[in-house]
Amino acid sequence: MKTIAVLTSGGDAPGMNAAVRAVVRSGIYNGCKVFGVNRGYRGLIDGDLFEMDLSSVGDIIHRGGTILKSARCLEFKTEEGRAKALNVLKVFGIDGLVVIGGDGSFQGAQKVSEMGFPAIGIPGTIDNDLAYTDYTIGFDTTLNTVIDAISKIRDTSSSHERVSIIEVMGRHCGDIALYSGLAGGAEVIIIPEAEYNEDEICKKLIQSKNRGKKHSIIMLAEGVGGAQELSEKIKEKTGIESRATILGHIQRGGSPSAFDRIIASQMGAKAVELLLEGKSSRVVGIKNNEIIDMDIHEALAIERKLNTDIYKLVDVLSI
Amino acid sequence: MKTIAVLTSGGDAPGMNAAVRAVVRSGIYNGCKVFGVNRGYRGLIDGDLFEMDLSSVGDIIHRGGTILKSARCLEFKTEEGRAKALNVLKVFGIDGLVVIGGDGSFQGAQKVSEMGFPAIGIPGTIDNDLAYTDYTIGFDTTLNTVIDAISKIRDTSSSHERVSIIEVMGRHCGDIALYSGLAGGAEVIIIPEAEYNEDEICKKLIQSKNRGKKHSIIMLAEGVGGAQELSEKIKEKTGIESRATILGHIQRGGSPSAFDRIIASQMGAKAVELLLEGKSSRVVGIKNNEIIDMDIHEALAIERKLNTDIYKLVDVLSI
Amino acid sequence: MKTIAVLTSGGDAPGMNAAVRAVVRSGIYNGCKVFGVNRGYRGLIDGDLFEMDLSSVGDIIHRGGTILKSARCLEFKTEEGRAKALNVLKVFGIDGLVVIGGDGSFQGAQKVSEMGFPAIGIPGTIDNDLAYTDYTIGFDTTLNTVIDAISKIRDTSSSHERVSIIEVMGRHCGDIALYSGLAGGAEVIIIPEAEYNEDEICKKLIQSKNRGKKHSIIMLAEGVGGAQELSEKIKEKTGIESRATILGHIQRGGSPSAFDRIIASQMGAKAVELLLEGKSSRVVGIKNNEIIDMDIHEALAIERKLNTDIYKLVDVLSI
Amino acid sequence: MKTIAVLTSGGDAPGMNAAVRAVVRSGIYNGCKVFGVNRGYRGLIDGDLFEMDLSSVGDIIHRGGTILKSARCLEFKTEEGRAKALNVLKVFGIDGLVVIGGDGSFQGAQKVSEMGFPAIGIPGTIDNDLAYTDYTIGFDTTLNTVIDAISKIRDTSSSHERVSIIEVMGRHCGDIALYSGLAGGAEVIIIPEAEYNEDEICKKLIQSKNRGKKHSIIMLAEGVGGAQELSEKIKEKTGIESRATILGHIQRGGSPSAFDRIIASQMGAKAVELLLEGKSSRVVGIKNNEIIDMDIHEALAIERKLNTDIYKLVDVLSI
Repeated sequence: MKTIAVLTSGGDAPGMNAAVRAVVRSGIYNGCKVFGVNRGYRGLIDGDLFEMDLSSVGDIIHRGGTILKSARCLEFKTEEGRAKALNVLKVFGIDGLVVIGGDGSFQGAQKVSEMGFPAIGIPGTIDNDLAYTDYTIGFDTTLNTVIDAISKIRDTSSSHERVSIIEVMGRHCGDIALYSGLAGGAEVIIIPEAEYNEDEICKKLIQSKNRGKKHSIIMLAEGVGGAQELSEKIKEKTGIESRATILGHIQRGGSPSAFDRIIASQMGAKAVELLLEGKSSRVVGIKNNEIIDMDIHEALAIERKLNTDIYKLVDVLSI
Repeated sequence: MKTIAVLTSGGDAPGMNAAVRAVVRSGIYNGCKVFGVNRGYRGLIDGDLFEMDLSSVGDIIHRGGTILKSARCLEFKTEEGRAKALNVLKVFGIDGLVVIGGDGSFQGAQKVSEMGFPAIGIPGTIDNDLAYTDYTIGFDTTLNTVIDAISKIRDTSSSHERVSIIEVMGRHCGDIALYSGLAGGAEVIIIPEAEYNEDEICKKLIQSKNRGKKHSIIMLAEGVGGAQELSEKIKEKTGIESRATILGHIQRGGSPSAFDRIIASQMGAKAVELLLEGKSSRVVGIKNNEIIDMDIHEALAIERKLNTDIYKLVDVLSI
Repeated sequence: MKTIAVLTSGGDAPGMNAAVRAVVRSGIYNGCKVFGVNRGYRGLIDGDLFEMDLSSVGDIIHRGGTILKSARCLEFKTEEGRAKALNVLKVFGIDGLVVIGGDGSFQGAQKVSEMGFPAIGIPGTIDNDLAYTDYTIGFDTTLNTVIDAISKIRDTSSSHERVSIIEVMGRHCGDIALYSGLAGGAEVIIIPEAEYNEDEICKKLIQSKNRGKKHSIIMLAEGVGGAQELSEKIKEKTGIESRATILGHIQRGGSPSAFDRIIASQMGAKAVELLLEGKSSRVVGIKNNEIIDMDIHEALAIERKLNTDIYKLVDVLSI
Repeated sequence: MKTIAVLTSGGDAPGMNAAVRAVVRSGIYNGCKVFGVNRGYRGLIDGDLFEMDLSSVGDIIHRGGTILKSARCLEFKTEEGRAKALNVLKVFGIDGLVVIGGDGSFQGAQKVSEMGFPAIGIPGTIDNDLAYTDYTIGFDTTLNTVIDAISKIRDTSSSHERVSIIEVMGRHCGDIALYSGLAGGAEVIIIPEAEYNEDEICKKLIQSKNRGKKHSIIMLAEGVGGAQELSEKIKEKTGIESRATILGHIQRGGSPSAFDRIIASQMGAKAVELLLEGKSSRVVGIKNNEIIDMDIHEALAIERKLNTDIYKLVDVLSI
């Protein structure tokens, strides 16, 4: 193994830069050349690659976003697109590819592997929606961003004695709502993985108010949605004022947390190690507090399950 | 002057607690008793007052929101409501009232003054929409919250090379959008005080893209609104992807900035001083870097003007 | 089991309040009475206990420090002191004790257990120096505080092209220096668990400078110390300017991170669960991403080991 | 006027980048060429200049430190050194120089002006020690950094019921200690501009403790120093435990506050305007909430005075 390429793909996540840095630095440390690919698979097709040296990744470990940029690329979903990409990889003399991204990006890496080209995936997505790994890069930073927003909203909702409904990212996976809800002291969590009952929620809000709580917080995952409608129903059924906030894109940005920088650094180094060992079609992750790797097919086949312990704990701690 | 009451009214603002603390502490320092009124004018009508001592305001200078809570109160807009309130003030032996809030709250203070009861206003509102003072308490904190959000959004919009449209608070007054736009390096500011031309904006976005900018930021005041629609029009007219974010209630919360705590402390002390001097129907403010006071009628009559220097400077600095 | 007491002891750590809240709320949820003890073992001896209800722990999950306060207590190290404490526990009708703290606090809990009184320990210490658990409450927050400080110091040391030496807490355990060093992109880590060689460090600093790095960061654990002396030696041996910063007590404070709030919530609930099951002399922890419990004696006997993978990774990534 | 050079000199300050950006962008907007000088006067002597375009200053408005770097330069204090610098300016075809820095940097600008070369100063220093301007760039950010540190230290000192002594920057000027002390709710301010009496301080600490305060904060300016000694004396005279923290270089870094970015932007534009008008030997500043300019000699001759209103207010509000 001599020459590695690295790209970031899909929605960006804080810590992607730390992972890129780890791939570049540990690649060079092990005697490899490392190329960066701009704009994910798009750049692979377009031949938008450039050689990176040690200082290409200087002063980026603390930066949000991705210096390699990201983009959607429909063309890569076609056989012709992938053939072009593979050609580019050969022309540039690349021997192995590291893909940092989520679900969809891993499917791309899998296709590349199937074409006989070594590819390794690193889980970079704020959603924490990959079941094979306990944490994805970016999730911890997003949780900290969300609990900071909860604190700010709590200030104003306490002052006005209102209920706050906070909609956070997560289309299929409610982990951002669930974990930030536990950490933020929320009363109610509404996520795609669990049924919810409006009357139960209203009952809880009334009880909370009656026992003297000045405000209540409802965390709502994007995949369920309907923050504004819920706000109106609560008013109608309980008479309690509420305000809906959709946190939006601030959840994707910001300087990565210590935890995200650490696992990103470890995973980046691990990906290079795997390529040097001649492995392909693997994804790296963290399981039981250890950096692991697993076959991509296998990893993508594992079904996500709701952490019911945490879901119940929210209920216990918000009585 | 022996007994003072203080209330917070209208939308809460970071720094209100610092102002309450200053009223209580400087009141007691000068030999007064100080009562806190819960929930603004509502509490005045309901007799929801309590005596505050030095430690009532301990460890609150750094807290967002208002420990005295706030609420809307339609009843106070009626003569009967105000008569009840005045009665409560007399029953509790209050000699003077300090009202911390915005425009509407000051009108209440003015009515109280007209009924012969000494009242002083302190400008607490994130909107900076009171023309008689250079700054209102809360404005600086909100600016810092907004530029932090801009930084986070910039991370992700740079990574995806998109335009960001960020809608911030300000119904009649675009100061939050304007000042945070200058501080955040925005390309375009859309506020109620100034005309804007969609084609000019699109032209600027295209030019920016062509000269290599990876992203552009458009600040939009709530009073203009239509973030989502604008996003679609930009896509249509320029082909450039954009994302709209409505920052919402996080703008109201958070630990107050140094500047807001300082002016809140100064204004709170000034309000007590005015009451001790037998003044009434005054508002305090900061003008030319000095704490001032002015007649309420006069203050409310001054017309706000757009800071055109800053508005133009945004254009110069975002070429 | 009917009545539980909870105390915080030793150096405070962010997340202790989240743990107290979890003990109180899950205790009450399970039908118990819960008492808070002020100032750790001191309050136990003095009978400084008070019954806590649901709202005693309202709005504290996001606060640093501990609402129960903490203090050193030499008297508790004597048999007489402990006899007094046990007497107080009986007089108040307490059936079980939860101790939140570090090494020394656990030894106290062990003594209480040995006297036949059920006691459970929760690891609350920023140092992460308890080998039986992967993380202690407070460690993650401190890491985030330290990397934020590193970012600020990096700004100024880059501008002046200086080396920064940053001394962080950790007398016997270098984990704060090690993990924040990895996350902060440090060049050198100096900790009690590993030898270091001044000439090697100087060599690395010279090489870094020669390959164009504008600044280098050295993380130094308190247990090694000597930041100022090191700074002078570097100047002498390399001619490169450096500045020493001792971060001090800011490392103990601040709103707890999402991670710390989550594990604190889980551990608090677990401690109550153990008492309800009639267990004693146990400590709770997190191992392999799962909440566990273990005998106190056993837990305290496990020897800490340096995470050599991370120690080496710092070297690889800072070439 | 066609070609402008800009440099940053002396201790760096957050907001310097915003000022550099404003000089470059408003220079180019007005048809000028703009050169950046690396490492302050050092770079001027060495001819370390480079032409800057619009994107040279892209994405820097929110960054701490200075992209132009800074350095001390003894050689510029000699006539020979300055002659070399002037020669470089001529060789590069520069018509005017903007110097961003403090006291010492302005003296350099004055010398340059005296040699017949147009030079304008912008006040960039965290110390706020320039009497002709109400605020210097960086001061507001530093205040916010310090009050954040105070909040963190307050968490732990409340938990342990200790006094905190916090030493902040400011050799001759106590403004950082004074303003952050007011904003942070400090009990005592010790600054070079005012006498202090140890017994008075001890008396206040005892009184505070007796009336139930869980902690007290003493702000100490670097120019007075002796944090550790003071801590020991307090223990000796009052029996109260205290801890000293020297905040150090974190005070210089961090993303600039909204206020600092705004005044930096305004001042940068003003400096260019002055050069275009053919002015020289001027400094820009902010006075009475307006951007002003003044002769350098005159500006440097104005004597700083302590803001006694604020100094007294701290006393009133911390009873």
